[in-house]
Amino acid sequence: MIVGIETGGTKVICGAAREGRPQELVRDLRIPTTTPDETTDAINAFLDEIREIEPVTALGVASFGPINVEPDKPRWGWVTGTPKPGWADTDLLGRIRMTAEVPTVLLSDVASAALGEQTWGAGAGVPRVAYATFGTGVGVGLCLDGRVLHGNGYPEMGHLLVRRHPRDDYEGSCPFHGDCLEGLASGPAVLGRWGSDASSLDAGIRAQALDILAFYIAQLAAATAYTTGVERFVVGGGVLKTPGLFDAVVERLPGVTGGPGASHAASLDEPGFLASPALGDHSGVLGAIAAARALLPR
Amino acid sequence: MIVGIETGGTKVICGAAREGRPQELVRDLRIPTTTPDETTDAINAFLDEIREIEPVTALGVASFGPINVEPDKPRWGWVTGTPKPGWADTDLLGRIRMTAEVPTVLLSDVASAALGEQTWGAGAGVPRVAYATFGTGVGVGLCLDGRVLHGNGYPEMGHLLVRRHPRDDYEGSCPFHGDCLEGLASGPAVLGRWGSDASSLDAGIRAQALDILAFYIAQLAAATAYTTGVERFVVGGGVLKTPGLFDAVVERLPGVTGGPGASHAASLDEPGFLASPALGDHSGVLGAIAAARALLPR
Repeated sequence: MIVGIETGGTKVICGAAREGRPQELVRDLRIPTTTPDETTDAINAFLDEIREIEPVTALGVASFGPINVEPDKPRWGWVTGTPKPGWADTDLLGRIRMTAEVPTVLLSDVASAALGEQTWGAGAGVPRVAYATFGTGVGVGLCLDGRVLHGNGYPEMGHLLVRRHPRDDYEGSCPFHGDCLEGLASGPAVLGRWGSDASSLDAGIRAQALDILAFYIAQLAAATAYTTGVERFVVGGGVLKTPGLFDAVVERLPGVTGGPGASHAASLDEPGFLASPALGDHSGVLGAIAAARALLPR
Repeated sequence: MIVGIETGGTKVICGAAREGRPQELVRDLRIPTTTPDETTDAINAFLDEIREIEPVTALGVASFGPINVEPDKPRWGWVTGTPKPGWADTDLLGRIRMTAEVPTVLLSDVASAALGEQTWGAGAGVPRVAYATFGTGVGVGLCLDGRVLHGNGYPEMGHLLVRRHPRDDYEGSCPFHGDCLEGLASGPAVLGRWGSDASSLDAGIRAQALDILAFYIAQLAAATAYTTGVERFVVGGGVLKTPGLFDAVVERLPGVTGGPGASHAASLDEPGFLASPALGDHSGVLGAIAAARALLPR
């Protein structure tokens, strides 16, 4: 059995799959994220339960960050400077007992989601995939040629200093930068600017809200493709649940990139460049399982 | 002997080094870049000359782009849509006879410069290095953990849609985007905005010019670190020869990143994050030699 654990800001998703069919979860459990002790106790209980069914051969953990994902660095597996109460400077992996017994890989949540979507979802068969989430924050995960890119705190494209939409005078919600991408297009930014989520706005103001958000999201998509050559940009998270927003991003992108032919990366101009997640809430946990599977002997 | 060839827009640099001391060029030749025939004839003559001294065991070619650097793609080694007269759709590698006989690697010019600087220059000992050049265009090369990142036309961070400097009303020089990074901070943009290079401006206006350029360059440095986690950002090219500009970028960066602690990538805040090239005009050719050396059996 391969196990994947995704620890998120509000909930943990635990999944287990057989080696032969790793994309099919035979167990799937949600746990609320509370204190580190309580949360990891519940994770350990899940792992014990799985082990009673079948031996666990590999474990993948995908975590909210910032988390130290580099095994050769001190404090591998520690959540570091998060504002989440009780979690700053927590040895997450050390609290999950099975990591001492079973080959374990740790990824950031967004990197894991990118790997999940590339392996079995909206990025299947595409060599270079990014997964961006617009929710409480803005995060980007990258999988290039089967390799997850992260470490040294990146990616943290949420802090990109995007060009302001001419109709947007919101000062921004980021405590560090004010009006960086996260300060302008995260869930809290939407709430701070319009007083509600974008789906609930009146039709008149909603069209403009979608255009403003789409302009910022398109800038992230373009900047990520310019830097890393991703051929698919999967974009999800709570903000993208706003009806019409995904299509607005598709419409905005050519204006940001200069349209067909302006980029060397031809994939930016292709209709499938932007995609919605195909794995729903399971991108991250399936990515953790995909990463764990890579630890097994071939 | 290992040979490196860097084909640039105006000149070609050819270098040869012995395997035991690859960073020391025992031959170093400059050829003007003219027509593809004339230029590659001169490259072939250089290679024949080296071969008369000692057998050539590996060849690295670094080329201006866009060039197809992926060996498994059709038309590997072709320069594709360049505006450079006579060079569009040219089989560059096919014209260099030795590539049929000797293990050969092809890189983009900026990727090669990044590898050169990481191997023997300003990025030595640093796991993740970017090399940016501000000249006729704006280009970025990336070396992460000893691997050159490119393909699919990227990196092409020159097209980043930077935030405008409030004092800058120049419309931009990029034929595709107008005021993207390249349209605002390349050599032609400097010339188009101020009518001369920045070094020649009067003291009064020069301070503001440096601040404008530095703001854009700092945005590129931050966006590259956010996306790829580079710990060193080497910045060169003709525009960076303006006295005071490098220091202005160092000064501008904390304003763009939010200052110490605002980024997860702590390296962004460190004094050595920004660096000037250490290999002068030889970053590219030495990078080509470093890449060719990697083809040899250990």
